[in-house]
Amino acid sequence: MERPETQLISLADIRAAADRIKAGGVARAAPTEGGGVRSGAGNVLRTPLLSLPVPRLDGPLWLKAENLQPVGAFKIRGATNALALLDADARAAGVVTHSSGNHGRALAYAARAAKVRCIVVVPDGAPKVKTDAMRALGAELVVVDPADRLATARRVADERGLALIPPFDDARVIAGQGTIGLEILEDLPAVDTVLVPVGGGGLASGVATAVKELDPGTRVIGVEPELAADAAESLDAGERVVWPPERTERTIADGVRVGLSDLTFAHLRARLDGILTVTEQEIRAAMGTIAREAHVVAEPSGAVATAAALSGRAPSGCTVAVVSGGNVAPALLAETILPEQADHR
Amino acid sequence: MERPETQLISLADIRAAADRIKAGGVARAAPTEGGGVRSGAGNVLRTPLLSLPVPRLDGPLWLKAENLQPVGAFKIRGATNALALLDADARAAGVVTHSSGNHGRALAYAARAAKVRCIVVVPDGAPKVKTDAMRALGAELVVVDPADRLATARRVADERGLALIPPFDDARVIAGQGTIGLEILEDLPAVDTVLVPVGGGGLASGVATAVKELDPGTRVIGVEPELAADAAESLDAGERVVWPPERTERTIADGVRVGLSDLTFAHLRARLDGILTVTEQEIRAAMGTIAREAHVVAEPSGAVATAAALSGRAPSGCTVAVVSGGNVAPALLAETILPEQADHR
Repeated sequence: MERPETQLISLADIRAAADRIKAGGVARAAPTEGGGVRSGAGNVLRTPLLSLPVPRLDGPLWLKAENLQPVGAFKIRGATNALALLDADARAAGVVTHSSGNHGRALAYAARAAKVRCIVVVPDGAPKVKTDAMRALGAELVVVDPADRLATARRVADERGLALIPPFDDARVIAGQGTIGLEILEDLPAVDTVLVPVGGGGLASGVATAVKELDPGTRVIGVEPELAADAAESLDAGERVVWPPERTERTIADGVRVGLSDLTFAHLRARLDGILTVTEQEIRAAMGTIAREAHVVAEPSGAVATAAALSGRAPSGCTVAVVSGGNVAPALLAETILPEQADHR
Repeated sequence: MERPETQLISLADIRAAADRIKAGGVARAAPTEGGGVRSGAGNVLRTPLLSLPVPRLDGPLWLKAENLQPVGAFKIRGATNALALLDADARAAGVVTHSSGNHGRALAYAARAAKVRCIVVVPDGAPKVKTDAMRALGAELVVVDPADRLATARRVADERGLALIPPFDDARVIAGQGTIGLEILEDLPAVDTVLVPVGGGGLASGVATAVKELDPGTRVIGVEPELAADAAESLDAGERVVWPPERTERTIADGVRVGLSDLTFAHLRARLDGILTVTEQEIRAAMGTIAREAHVVAEPSGAVATAAALSGRAPSGCTVAVVSGGNVAPALLAETILPEQADHR
């Protein structure tokens, strides 16, 4: 039986999100008043496609550089769209979410810009670089066991009368992330394949919806770490398979350790052309290649799509890999930059 | 006595360069045919302004991210403009330049896109990461003693009938680099201060011309390493002072070791509001801050303007620092990323 939440979003939802993001954000990240952040729904960058020169690949590879967003991740798009859709009462009360880092940081950023109170339920073990950033943006943090984060966020929402803005299990959030797909096709109509990281699946759901509705001939392929391949297993099985946190915690790609929801599973099943998995070493090597050759910093989760492109296992042709975020511990980044790490090239 | 070369370029020259770059490049770095580089004058990215959150600064700091250009440096702008201005005979013969790295790489890139032969005279000791990249783009390299590079380039041009496209001592090149100034004011009209690295002075000459003619109230300040402060000394002295290579080679900022020409000195004297110098440690720390907080990779020369902003010695208010390039040796980058390096924060 299909639950009501599994109604899929449409291209129209994504176009509406793009309009809201443009109205609240600023093209090219440029504020107009004194250099400060505009009041309103946030401040979303229209990110560039960066060429990643890799001689051995059979076709050009472009990076959609979402790590350049003000919060260092694509999550600012979904958070901005969801906040813009709240009514005045809900905005006055405030918002709550649960997040391993980037969504919480994005919501905190957008909420501060909109002068809305923000609480983030954080799983124990989330990277300090991400939790520090949320606190610096004025968010209140509630740290819980990873398995309890959704329940805690729901309880906090009920008890304090706050609007819950989940990181991915939400049509408003998915529509916001889908604006990345619109921009890719606008900038590079000749793209053959879009590679997109899959964690909770909000990003992949949105991007696949935009791309497949605009151009059914363009492939959209999800990418996961081997060590958190629950979406690949779910699509194979034809039903949502949950991997326990102690299993997905093995990957360094902390942003994609979480599993799908019914809503994102329904999107991926209907709209994704396939899923590829990458090894931990491939993720590390991709981080190094991205830094050395494209001159941007990717966090492990942000590098998984590029890792798939560099693996030789993705289809040939003109490819865009979504670099979803750049919030990485300095020591890990430094380690991956040294060329010895990139032994697959 | 003013020599003919010291005639200053104007805003009109820069606007014309912007049109040429747009015609030959592609907005947002996106090609239209199969994902390859367009034939013609090259492929210049309209780079974004990235917010660099630094709580202690008195005003917002934005980075003009020229390190995201296809060749990892702003030099693609001047090279593209100069190539577009050659007549058919000159294009058929080919071009030659002298460069410590980024200009040579940019000219090689633009020349390959335009199917023009390219020779680069390289000073002995130029970083391997840069010379490798030039060779990969099909350029022929001639390695000489740093002091001989200009003479050698002139000789090669004469002997082989090639058009000389100098890295900075050239009105066409300066006008191309000036398009950065146009974009900054278009994206951030409220900017109070633009900080721009000074090596040969082409970038600073172009940016200062664009910014001061469009908005005389916006400050444009050059930035140099203390260990290569020949421009600061020249402006103080009221005449061009040359520092020998063995002196400027002490700085890690290899892209700004070269001195001014009469042409760039004349521009800087007329249009710059001042020059700041930064220490080697400030440059390293800025590289780390840029990677950790803005998620992009800056080479040492690319980080000097940001280093000035972070030093507290630049004027307060809304500031843009031009990050001129990102071509850095991996080991040096890895070293600077570790937070211990950023002890000034």
